[in-house]
Amino acid sequence: MNSQEIECLVRLFSRLPGFGPRSARRVVLYLLRDPQARLFPLLQALEQAGSSVSICSVCGTLDTVDPCHICTDRERDQGLICVVETVGDLWALERAGVHRGVYQVLGGTLSPLAGRGPEDLNVTSLLHRVETGNVREIILALGTTVEGTATMHWLTETLACYTGVIVSRVARGMPIGGALDMLDDGTLAAALSARHPI
Amino acid sequence: MNSQEIECLVRLFSRLPGFGPRSARRVVLYLLRDPQARLFPLLQALEQAGSSVSICSVCGTLDTVDPCHICTDRERDQGLICVVETVGDLWALERAGVHRGVYQVLGGTLSPLAGRGPEDLNVTSLLHRVETGNVREIILALGTTVEGTATMHWLTETLACYTGVIVSRVARGMPIGGALDMLDDGTLAAALSARHPI
Repeated sequence: MNSQEIECLVRLFSRLPGFGPRSARRVVLYLLRDPQARLFPLLQALEQAGSSVSICSVCGTLDTVDPCHICTDRERDQGLICVVETVGDLWALERAGVHRGVYQVLGGTLSPLAGRGPEDLNVTSLLHRVETGNVREIILALGTTVEGTATMHWLTETLACYTGVIVSRVARGMPIGGALDMLDDGTLAAALSARHPI
Repeated sequence: MNSQEIECLVRLFSRLPGFGPRSARRVVLYLLRDPQARLFPLLQALEQAGSSVSICSVCGTLDTVDPCHICTDRERDQGLICVVETVGDLWALERAGVHRGVYQVLGGTLSPLAGRGPEDLNVTSLLHRVETGNVREIILALGTTVEGTATMHWLTETLACYTGVIVSRVARGMPIGGALDMLDDGTLAAALSARHPI
């Protein structure tokens, strides 16, 4: 009974991650109730981002320039590469402002079950950088899932042939601000086994 | 560190109902990972809906034509008007396919606390239809909140002067498929007091 245009919009919104038909209808109604203030600014932002954003050929992140702002930033340590799974992970590290080097976005993890092998990971440009550039250290900041761990092992082996490059991984342990009895067994075991004298 | 275009898109998405910064980033990443298949179709749908959808001058719903499809549908009972709070309520009734008359969308409820009085409700066109048309019955299908109930009382009084028009309200009671011990006190009381012989 709705118009086709509204139905189409609801259908597209309900495909977005975290959306269902109900929340999609809610958002569409919200946008259409005040198109000038709500729908058109979003439309414009989508248009601009869609036409200008592309994947950085060096590190694999999303940016309006290629190579991206991070890869061309001379104030950043180009010899220190942090390997992450997704662009979202890169954004999280950038928000925290804790990494002053550059990045490599793999675009996923190895997963034999899902049929994702090494050829599906964005590693060619990483190896290229290691071969040609002055890479000093590679930090593996992958998820502590089975697949993230498998990817970490594979990357460590692949990078082992490049002598002179340190391969490290981020520490595992208790999250800051966390109470001990709220942690899962895996985290507790990791925190305990990685203990160090104070 | 992200480009301005991405930041702007994330900010606009995080203002949508049900969104926060985290879910907005997730959606933006999802869209930008495959613009051809994800971002551009959404862009196009927003463009079409934004340029074509307007408010029906008769009932107040959203549609691409004015008067809307429902108001001009000769197969629907134009003498039976169902009064709802929002366009979302109208959509819910249409999905259920249980109302074969037409609608009046108030656009909200009376709320002295929020400063919303009768002048903020879309009732002029309802009264106009009652005065000029062959309206037989008006069904009040408002929320069973304090504000919905207050609006219902006010509307009943306002419509009382039009003799010959039946003003009814949707029944209150147990929802279908509901277990008795899962219901709140208010619903139980309403269901019990509205009992009828079988």
